[in-house]
Amino acid sequence: MRAARAAADRPRRRDQEVLRAATKVFHERGYADATVQDVADELGILKGSLYYYIKTKEDLLFWLVEEAHASVETILHDAAALDTLAPLDRLAVYVRGLVEFNVDNIPRVSIYYHDVGRLSGPRRRDVYRRRRDHEVWVVDMIRLAQTRGEVDAGLDPAVLANCLFGTQIWLYRWYRPTSGGSRDAVVDHVTRYALAGITGAGGVDLPPAP
Amino acid sequence: MRAARAAADRPRRRDQEVLRAATKVFHERGYADATVQDVADELGILKGSLYYYIKTKEDLLFWLVEEAHASVETILHDAAALDTLAPLDRLAVYVRGLVEFNVDNIPRVSIYYHDVGRLSGPRRRDVYRRRRDHEVWVVDMIRLAQTRGEVDAGLDPAVLANCLFGTQIWLYRWYRPTSGGSRDAVVDHVTRYALAGITGAGGVDLPPAP
Repeated sequence: MRAARAAADRPRRRDQEVLRAATKVFHERGYADATVQDVADELGILKGSLYYYIKTKEDLLFWLVEEAHASVETILHDAAALDTLAPLDRLAVYVRGLVEFNVDNIPRVSIYYHDVGRLSGPRRRDVYRRRRDHEVWVVDMIRLAQTRGEVDAGLDPAVLANCLFGTQIWLYRWYRPTSGGSRDAVVDHVTRYALAGITGAGGVDLPPAP
Repeated sequence: MRAARAAADRPRRRDQEVLRAATKVFHERGYADATVQDVADELGILKGSLYYYIKTKEDLLFWLVEEAHASVETILHDAAALDTLAPLDRLAVYVRGLVEFNVDNIPRVSIYYHDVGRLSGPRRRDVYRRRRDHEVWVVDMIRLAQTRGEVDAGLDPAVLANCLFGTQIWLYRWYRPTSGGSRDAVVDHVTRYALAGITGAGGVDLPPAP
């Protein structure tokens, strides 16, 4: 029994090794400049052996992107399932989950946002469809909070949703695990900033444009 | 007098045409894939004539980046000079100015954030130094607001500053002038979100992690 499971797990484990090597190589050299040969070298295998897993370099990028989406969709579904919580509390759980994912996966998230546009048409459309699920859900939560009077009803929920995405995504450009600050404090501060942005935007008194 | 000024303006005007053509070509094809020949074709001149302005493709990128910095530094200095305003009001003027700049210069801002890492060492360091001026000033304004009790003193001003940058920069990934929403409403909402994020983050009650 244990031996059978171990055998079944083996290809999956090897898959993860390939993905990890591709992530490392793309992150260090840039996807545009990296080659399948570089990934094979990182794995210490022949390039021909790598073609057992993929046909082109783009297959590795698509695989990386699909795996990232699988992870963030779990976060979305878990938050959406908390239907005893108020919409803003579900949103807070979602934001915290995404921020944690981004903080813990800087190389993968960097490649995703830098190079997702390099995927060919049908794959890019698949990614945009998966992203849209997030947008629709976040906008829905903001709308629900607006009907409850918890977010200013005069604000555009799509703009607020995009601000929210910017806050949680931009982490990949500035957060480094080695930069000394506590990961949990960063996650907490960023989540608070996003929720305060959504709930408080209507009450801000801006100075007149100079 | 008028003739002399016109003559002096001419090279400058031509410079701007070169920069505009490079921006268009890099935005449409991607900096990595575009060539100096593409930029010459866009201008309708021989590649050799373009080498009067630049030596390499990277010179065009650096020029574009330097011009963007010159613009955003003016916004920073104008906001910093408003020393009769409270720190958060100066910050609001700064954020609004940056958001307007980003909304009005999507191609240039896209190239900047996508490809600034491709600049060679000394140029990249020059860019990071110029960016640091913004970070230092924003962190200072947040610290001042903390001493005045307008921002929770328990929050890390550097994290809040990075959240602020994410909010204003991420616009280049989602805002399109053609997408129908009013530019001024978007600028207003995004500025409000950022200020509310900074001032309200300390007062947000997050649900416990599930």
